Amino acid sequence: MQPVVQQLGVIGCGLIGGSFALALKRAGMVRQVVGYSKSPTTTETARRLGVIDRVAESALLAVSGSDVVLVAVPVAATETTLKNIRELVSPDMLVMDVGSTKRDVVDTARRVLGEKIGSFVPAHPIAGKESAGVQHADGALYQGRQVILTPLPQTRASHVDRATLLWQAAGAVVQQMSADSHDAAFAAVSHLPHLLAFAYFSAIANQPAGPEFLSLAGPGFRDFTRIAASDPTIWRDILLANREEVLRQSQRFRYQLKLLETAMASGQSADLEELIRLPALARSQWQIGGAPVTTGHPGPAPQGGAATTGAAGSGTPPAGQTPSPGAPRPR
Amino acid sequence: MQPVVQQLGVIGCGLIGGSFALALKRAGMVRQVVGYSKSPTTTETARRLGVIDRVAESALLAVSGSDVVLVAVPVAATETTLKNIRELVSPDMLVMDVGSTKRDVVDTARRVLGEKIGSFVPAHPIAGKESAGVQHADGALYQGRQVILTPLPQTRASHVDRATLLWQAAGAVVQQMSADSHDAAFAAVSHLPHLLAFAYFSAIANQPAGPEFLSLAGPGFRDFTRIAASDPTIWRDILLANREEVLRQSQRFRYQLKLLETAMASGQSADLEELIRLPALARSQWQIGGAPVTTGHPGPAPQGGAATTGAAGSGTPPAGQTPSPGAPRPR
Repeated sequence: MQPVVQQLGVIGCGLIGGSFALALKRAGMVRQVVGYSKSPTTTETARRLGVIDRVAESALLAVSGSDVVLVAVPVAATETTLKNIRELVSPDMLVMDVGSTKRDVVDTARRVLGEKIGSFVPAHPIAGKESAGVQHADGALYQGRQVILTPLPQTRASHVDRATLLWQAAGAVVQQMSADSHDAAFAAVSHLPHLLAFAYFSAIANQPAGPEFLSLAGPGFRDFTRIAASDPTIWRDILLANREEVLRQSQRFRYQLKLLETAMASGQSADLEELIRLPALARSQWQIGGAPVTTGHPGPAPQGGAATTGAAGSGTPPAGQTPSPGAPRPR
Repeated sequence: MQPVVQQLGVIGCGLIGGSFALALKRAGMVRQVVGYSKSPTTTETARRLGVIDRVAESALLAVSGSDVVLVAVPVAATETTLKNIRELVSPDMLVMDVGSTKRDVVDTARRVLGEKIGSFVPAHPIAGKESAGVQHADGALYQGRQVILTPLPQTRASHVDRATLLWQAAGAVVQQMSADSHDAAFAAVSHLPHLLAFAYFSAIANQPAGPEFLSLAGPGFRDFTRIAASDPTIWRDILLANREEVLRQSQRFRYQLKLLETAMASGQSADLEELIRLPALARSQWQIGGAPVTTGHPGPAPQGGAATTGAAGSGTPPAGQTPSPGAPRPR
């Protein structure tokens, strides 16, 4: 492993891929960037903006001669892309993706790359912008952001080290976890909020007075619904790819919502206040990238996304959320 | 009615009341501000910061000699406050509140003020800040923000005019509607999002891996949950005061969530994309204070939550979301 990348191949020259190229350039960590995008206009823009140095005519040609390859395409296009480049993936080559779900990517990579899987380091940079597209690529996009790597047992350790080093050079804070843990965590903190924001916005907009209601909405609404403006096809794929975990988290959410609704409907003022006080306190202590907040939950406990076990239908609380006698109590 | 206020009495010298006083001072619209707060420290701070000119020892004394009175206390304290000041409310005096719910305030005011109700103009400024308290009072808080007035039939027209003029002087855009319409609208665009944010944050935090999950959350989560940090007692009161409308809106929301979940669970990619595309498009067209957005909703027609027609997988839509006859219609 050498620290400086001789040739970075970027497949998918959008905001994420383009920002990675710019960040490595800025850090002096790459000699040449070769880029390929499905749309020739995108690649040409990337070249014109100095995001890439040379346009490749195909994904395979972007891999040719590269020692590091970043596959920055929508998750649904990962399989095709890996098939297209498979032939030229070599043991010394580091190949990364940037997908928001990891279990599906790992499965796909295992299947498509076969014995070449050792080159693959699944990556998820937790970063983005309102506006997609290479014209918004930004060498500082990953500054202070987290990047999760979910290496497989077969992944070469030297590739994991190099991936870590490169994302750190891009300004990111890097950590490793299993693909399963990743998907469980992001179902909770990213995928479910998107699902809820889509559902909420539809519910408000799709009623006779929807337009009038929307014209009265303020800053709280604006922030709460910001993620509802996310790209529909990307989010369709994420929600499908991680549906089991997302549905599990949604069940937890619906259970909490039911508790609140019940307290409201029955006018149980003290219960309602308690149900609000806990999240209000925990949220006011939370900050991005901060230390784990105290949530009123006892201890660090056994982990893994599915804290809710066989959660059951509406009515019975999912195991693990059963309030102890009296007040609804976070486990 | 004279444009300039001879004496403004502010009962509850917090962020909202204090900012109103500062805004009128800045606009040269008030000669003197007299303030009362339950906590003497607050009133003293308000005086020291120049938010008020004189400290009153009671709510009644803040009303004495005032031609305009702003009751800026939590909604739950409105009744007591009105009782305390009732004696000195005169026909020429304009009395306003600032509560986030209006039907309950109107009912209370009608009951407590009796034949003096003509002086009362219920008001709801759509403004706020992360940080409450008079030390954050800001003369520009209402700049460009909306203020809703919900006058009663008995409210003197001259008081409504004066209230309008004063809030406009504070920089706000003023509109009138009935208390019922107000509560229906804000159940949809403000109260329900708070309820959902509380439920969501609790659901995520109250699981064994909650703290780890929270440490991985990014900007989307931050914005989506910002309102979950709101004041618990204030929101308990709002959610209770407007519970019928909020529960009605929540039902619409749960119906949309169910549609999304069903599409996910059954892997109906096209349905899922459609369910996401509509809100994503509508949200990206929406902006604060903007014109009503097109929601993909077919005309002004009788309708229901589901823009996607019979996409409903599981079960029938809840009453009130069935397209056409019987749809819950914001009053």
